[in-house]
Amino acid sequence: MPSEFALIDRYFRRAPRDPAHTVLGVGDDGAIVRPSPGCELVISTDMLMAGTHFLPDTDPADLGWKTLAVNVSDLAAMGALPRWALLAAALPEANEAWIEKFAQGFFACADSFGIDVIGGDTTKSPPVDAALQRPPPRGQGNTWGGPACFPGPRVFCVTIFGEVPTGTALLRSGAAVGDEIWVSGHPGRAALGLAHLQGRTVLSEPALTDCLAALHRPQPRVALGLALRGLATAAIDVSDGLLADLGHILKASNVAARLQPAVLPAPTIERDSYLAGGDDYELVFTVPAARHAEVAALSTSLALPLARIGTIESGSGLSVFDPAGQALDIARRGYDHFS
Amino acid sequence: MPSEFALIDRYFRRAPRDPAHTVLGVGDDGAIVRPSPGCELVISTDMLMAGTHFLPDTDPADLGWKTLAVNVSDLAAMGALPRWALLAAALPEANEAWIEKFAQGFFACADSFGIDVIGGDTTKSPPVDAALQRPPPRGQGNTWGGPACFPGPRVFCVTIFGEVPTGTALLRSGAAVGDEIWVSGHPGRAALGLAHLQGRTVLSEPALTDCLAALHRPQPRVALGLALRGLATAAIDVSDGLLADLGHILKASNVAARLQPAVLPAPTIERDSYLAGGDDYELVFTVPAARHAEVAALSTSLALPLARIGTIESGSGLSVFDPAGQALDIARRGYDHFS
Repeated sequence: MPSEFALIDRYFRRAPRDPAHTVLGVGDDGAIVRPSPGCELVISTDMLMAGTHFLPDTDPADLGWKTLAVNVSDLAAMGALPRWALLAAALPEANEAWIEKFAQGFFACADSFGIDVIGGDTTKSPPVDAALQRPPPRGQGNTWGGPACFPGPRVFCVTIFGEVPTGTALLRSGAAVGDEIWVSGHPGRAALGLAHLQGRTVLSEPALTDCLAALHRPQPRVALGLALRGLATAAIDVSDGLLADLGHILKASNVAARLQPAVLPAPTIERDSYLAGGDDYELVFTVPAARHAEVAALSTSLALPLARIGTIESGSGLSVFDPAGQALDIARRGYDHFS
Repeated sequence: MPSEFALIDRYFRRAPRDPAHTVLGVGDDGAIVRPSPGCELVISTDMLMAGTHFLPDTDPADLGWKTLAVNVSDLAAMGALPRWALLAAALPEANEAWIEKFAQGFFACADSFGIDVIGGDTTKSPPVDAALQRPPPRGQGNTWGGPACFPGPRVFCVTIFGEVPTGTALLRSGAAVGDEIWVSGHPGRAALGLAHLQGRTVLSEPALTDCLAALHRPQPRVALGLALRGLATAAIDVSDGLLADLGHILKASNVAARLQPAVLPAPTIERDSYLAGGDDYELVFTVPAARHAEVAALSTSLALPLARIGTIESGSGLSVFDPAGQALDIARRGYDHFS
């Protein structure tokens, strides 16, 4: 079985695409990069774990793409240009075929967005009894007397950083009363794709293909984020659900919102997914009403649907109306890992 | 049970110590930092997992310290000044008392080294059957019919950023024939402390206290790393064992080494720990022989033992001799996670 170092060498060491800024990549105690003068760095980290963030039988190439893409999305939401990423992984075994496919997907995403993968860490995810060093609790249908039988879970942690000209990053905290609320793309598709895979709904083509693509190969809205610098007053990406993530903008900006999309799915799992489905990585953002036409023009130039879905109001909280103006009862408000 | 966001707010959100350089910390999609002009960034990431990197019953404050300290050590080995860190954690439950103590240890280390904690991620470590979505294999002393009974393991991933004046970072690749090889502190103490806890040896005072401190509260050699800029030709920190980590310098520099420490423990677990014990976070470094006196003076000014343990030679590989000049058979060469 190849060593940790051999695996890193074989699958995760690539020549930097930008040697003027990536001075040293994988292979020393740390990487060395040279930031651009006049820029600030925007940095984000995300951990993905089998069973919480992805199904254990997810295609490894899709998983590699998504592991990086969800981090790219955080930079998109800040209006930053992604530049560098690090990957730490815990794996139960050195399954080379699996690792090779994961690396293919990961680097496909890195290549799409011009990112240098500059470092990482590979570690063994130990069998669970070794991690606990004790037998499981009694009385749950188990007896226990043998050696470890549970391989440890796969865990990935990506840290990404990018650049913005000093002072131009998009924050959650800038939404102002009267601003329009916009969302990109088709929120809800990823959640519908997951529901299909889990047997909670049945999709047919072409929705099936679209929803599975949204789930497995999310497209971070980097070009949109860059274009929104100096235009949007606040932005966030939809990772936990449209309402939940918009809620973070409202809280950070001390404002309320009235949401009334012009088009809203019927009150089925489709509507739930639209309002509260996570994993879409679309951007929700606010823009002064006077600049409505600039956003509409962006939609055309980026070939990306951008829909105005509401208005920022004074106060706090979020109310949602259907296109006819009927108030909705919004019980399901996204996903909070420990609640 | 408090939500993910409440936990982050309560234990991991602190005002930046350096607002001129830490523009935005925890709380948005990403953090924003402003690097110092004329500096390069040095970046490293490490994942720690219960069962592989720490005993599950480790005191949470010690674990918090060590989780950050091992990353600080990577920057020390590059001669960088640590500035910013991010923490991602997967936890099986929101055990507030545990998290509070972990945060205390983590921030104690951050405060010791002047580091701003600028972001992170908190996620749920799912029960292991949920991660696997299948029962364990038969025939290993188990029957299986009930719900999940294994909580998920604790996982931590830290990414750390620091600064060096452009072009001054210490690399593994600069060792030259004739250079002296030096090591700081007392390699082997952490491994001896672990062996004591696991019943593989019995330590008595004062060694017990010293070895447990080395294991639980490692002291990254940041001041030494800074002082070695412009003096050392290569450096690395001892995380996998003295021989294994020195081996990385030899490989990166295309040289060989003859190791002959003036003082070497007797051929017991103490010698094994000295040569191959991991987790010490001392620095091994090479210096031109002509600058021997400068290193000796550093030992005094830093109040840190620095021992010359060998010489860089041409060729490849590593030979080890006892103080009397007798060659040693070095079978145990450190720790490689997948081998």
